[in-house]
Amino acid sequence: MSRRRFCTGLVGAAAGLYLPRAARAQATAPRVNAARIQAGIEGLSAFGRPAGGSFQDGVSRVGYSDADVAGRRYVMELIRAAGLEPRIDAAGNILARRAGREDSLPPLLFGSHIDSVPNGGNFDGDVGSIGGVEVMRALQEAKHVTRRPLELVIWTNEEGVAFENGLCGSRAAAGKLEKGELDHVWNGVTKRDAIKKIGGDPDRIESARRAKGSFRAYLELHIEQGGTLDKAGIPIGVVEGIVAIDRYEAVVKGFANHAGTTPMPERKDALVAASQLVLLVREVVNAEPGRQVGTVGHLRVHPNAPNVIPGEVRMTIELRDLQSAKIARLAQSIKMRAAEIAKRTDTEIGIAPLSHHDEALATPEIQAAIERAADGLGLRHTRLPSGAGHDAQMMALLGPMGMIFVPSVLGISHSPRELSRFADCARGADVLLHTLLTLAE
Amino acid sequence: MSRRRFCTGLVGAAAGLYLPRAARAQATAPRVNAARIQAGIEGLSAFGRPAGGSFQDGVSRVGYSDADVAGRRYVMELIRAAGLEPRIDAAGNILARRAGREDSLPPLLFGSHIDSVPNGGNFDGDVGSIGGVEVMRALQEAKHVTRRPLELVIWTNEEGVAFENGLCGSRAAAGKLEKGELDHVWNGVTKRDAIKKIGGDPDRIESARRAKGSFRAYLELHIEQGGTLDKAGIPIGVVEGIVAIDRYEAVVKGFANHAGTTPMPERKDALVAASQLVLLVREVVNAEPGRQVGTVGHLRVHPNAPNVIPGEVRMTIELRDLQSAKIARLAQSIKMRAAEIAKRTDTEIGIAPLSHHDEALATPEIQAAIERAADGLGLRHTRLPSGAGHDAQMMALLGPMGMIFVPSVLGISHSPRELSRFADCARGADVLLHTLLTLAE
Repeated sequence: MSRRRFCTGLVGAAAGLYLPRAARAQATAPRVNAARIQAGIEGLSAFGRPAGGSFQDGVSRVGYSDADVAGRRYVMELIRAAGLEPRIDAAGNILARRAGREDSLPPLLFGSHIDSVPNGGNFDGDVGSIGGVEVMRALQEAKHVTRRPLELVIWTNEEGVAFENGLCGSRAAAGKLEKGELDHVWNGVTKRDAIKKIGGDPDRIESARRAKGSFRAYLELHIEQGGTLDKAGIPIGVVEGIVAIDRYEAVVKGFANHAGTTPMPERKDALVAASQLVLLVREVVNAEPGRQVGTVGHLRVHPNAPNVIPGEVRMTIELRDLQSAKIARLAQSIKMRAAEIAKRTDTEIGIAPLSHHDEALATPEIQAAIERAADGLGLRHTRLPSGAGHDAQMMALLGPMGMIFVPSVLGISHSPRELSRFADCARGADVLLHTLLTLAE
Repeated sequence: MSRRRFCTGLVGAAAGLYLPRAARAQATAPRVNAARIQAGIEGLSAFGRPAGGSFQDGVSRVGYSDADVAGRRYVMELIRAAGLEPRIDAAGNILARRAGREDSLPPLLFGSHIDSVPNGGNFDGDVGSIGGVEVMRALQEAKHVTRRPLELVIWTNEEGVAFENGLCGSRAAAGKLEKGELDHVWNGVTKRDAIKKIGGDPDRIESARRAKGSFRAYLELHIEQGGTLDKAGIPIGVVEGIVAIDRYEAVVKGFANHAGTTPMPERKDALVAASQLVLLVREVVNAEPGRQVGTVGHLRVHPNAPNVIPGEVRMTIELRDLQSAKIARLAQSIKMRAAEIAKRTDTEIGIAPLSHHDEALATPEIQAAIERAADGLGLRHTRLPSGAGHDAQMMALLGPMGMIFVPSVLGISHSPRELSRFADCARGADVLLHTLLTLAE
């Protein structure tokens, strides 16, 4: 079905309306090898696979784990097979540089990550990492030398399962590590020692930092993780930006009392109030048009016994949108109406900010370049926000940034059921390759 | 304030309208010593008190714990001070028998328990236990010998924190222990060994069983644990019965997905559905008149991460009323309307029964005797259900049963803030004493 819907690069080039010159160039330009991308993703899936499981059973390759170390070794072998020599920077990021005709120009940087959440899938991060290696290999095979140098990067601990704080490699590159972060302890190990374990050099962590303007642009190929592309049947997403994320903790205080002896009108039931708050979050977020989302993902009841009226409930409220101002306004509305719930239920509700992450907008010039590359390849595309965080948001602090999304079947991610069709992964890698080719000249 | 409101027994007797003969008898009948009840409750509170705390800090005296063993030793000393020799039956219940003039007649049985929930109060169980000992001591001091023998019982592990199954001593007496229950393990110890620890004899557990009709009546003095008496300013509650309790487990299945990348309309959020179910339980229970209660006390979210849409929620639904049929009807209504919630939220909701406990109605004759005793003492009284379970419900299976409630300040129980005024405790013990005096003749 997808083969009929999406014409080949050659036909697309012939039908190209926007940039006939570029299209002509692409007709002879290198293309990625789809079979090699599939083999690479399947090969990588072995590291962190559940015992006795198969590719379909997903992967647990938490950053700095033994599985992560083994996966990194595998990716470095692939890099060598692409004719490049990998190096590991002080933060543990894997780098592979390919010289340009004018090699002193700022390079084009691109890549992704290979760490996963526990019980995650084999596409999140892997598609952009294996796809990035394949871009290098395709250029090598075509003996195509770009004007600017190219640099592939496999970022360390993007997911932040380890140490409960992600984007570790890219934050080191952007100079955004927290004070004392190297001394954080997770599962009895300091981050310092975890970085050493993967070949980094925590004592020289500053050397992993990149200066503003030190690269021409940063590009990242990634699975969408949502269902927009899959539902629309569009193979390429051009990311508008990475959403801002505000997290709050709501504490609902009632009074824990005997569930048998306390008449209904006398109750101060924290869970009744909390339930109204969960529904309020959804109502407020849905009340205006747009792609904002709001989630109560974490909720705990105290004392949590069948025969005790809940005395306290704690929950997180997470809001995401491309515009910080919009989610700030939604939070304000939730707070005001939560006060009414508290009054009505005879409880106290406090809502306090836990964390704020700014949006990171993709650079219009880079978005346009991605669209031209997709057009040249005859691939339909659409713009959309990234609801998830990515290393790209750190690179956006330093220079032009763009992201290419490929469809996630049914929008499932962070799950063994996460799936992107290999043909789509190859299409995304081709768009990455052709965007790089344009920007590198 | 309470002294002015409640007249003395003598004045009450002089004003007695119903039973002038009994009232005349009570004018010279023994009375409990209020100071001794206070001293006993305060003395018992030392066993299981938080380190460095005071009486106000409540108690943790879980059944079979070291604190329980020490508290039992203390109560047995009080029994000896009342001139009786305590014995421990095979189930670990403490018994103290006082001979009657016709000592072969079935005895009047009365008592309560001294085990507590963790971080419980110093009145739940203790008032009826210490009050019961004081009844014996007052009779001893007055050299008053009743026609029928009297038997005090301090039941084992009423709360059921240990082994998560309460009314242990009274269930043994009623022949209602579960098959294999002695082999249940809690905190690494079998119930068999726990019973041995407190001086019971698990190998002869059957000997703790009492036959139907083997006692004239069972009476229990207890704190209300609800706020009805306190709010109404009435010192004596005459229990109509112990409510039936039905527990259900509701399992709400949605789909756990990325909270950033899954658009609001695509979500199958189990917590959104569960919140509607929590509110539905309250709505259905409140929809008809009566004293039924419904509680969601326990709720767990999976995977319970701020950035993951809840995929599954499990919760308990507990319904209580004096009529089993009523709570069965309420459950039916909840189930039907839960199906509508499931449809609306694109989730699955299953509601399965966890446990059922029948109501145990107090014997009308015993209720009337309690009311006459209160009248004779000039104490206002009202009838009310017991929303909490009690050992009395097991005794109701074997013979006539009645319970006397005293007010819980603000209706707080199972909390260090649990409080009953000592004067009210003494009033309740006097009503117990005078009810026994009537029934024992």
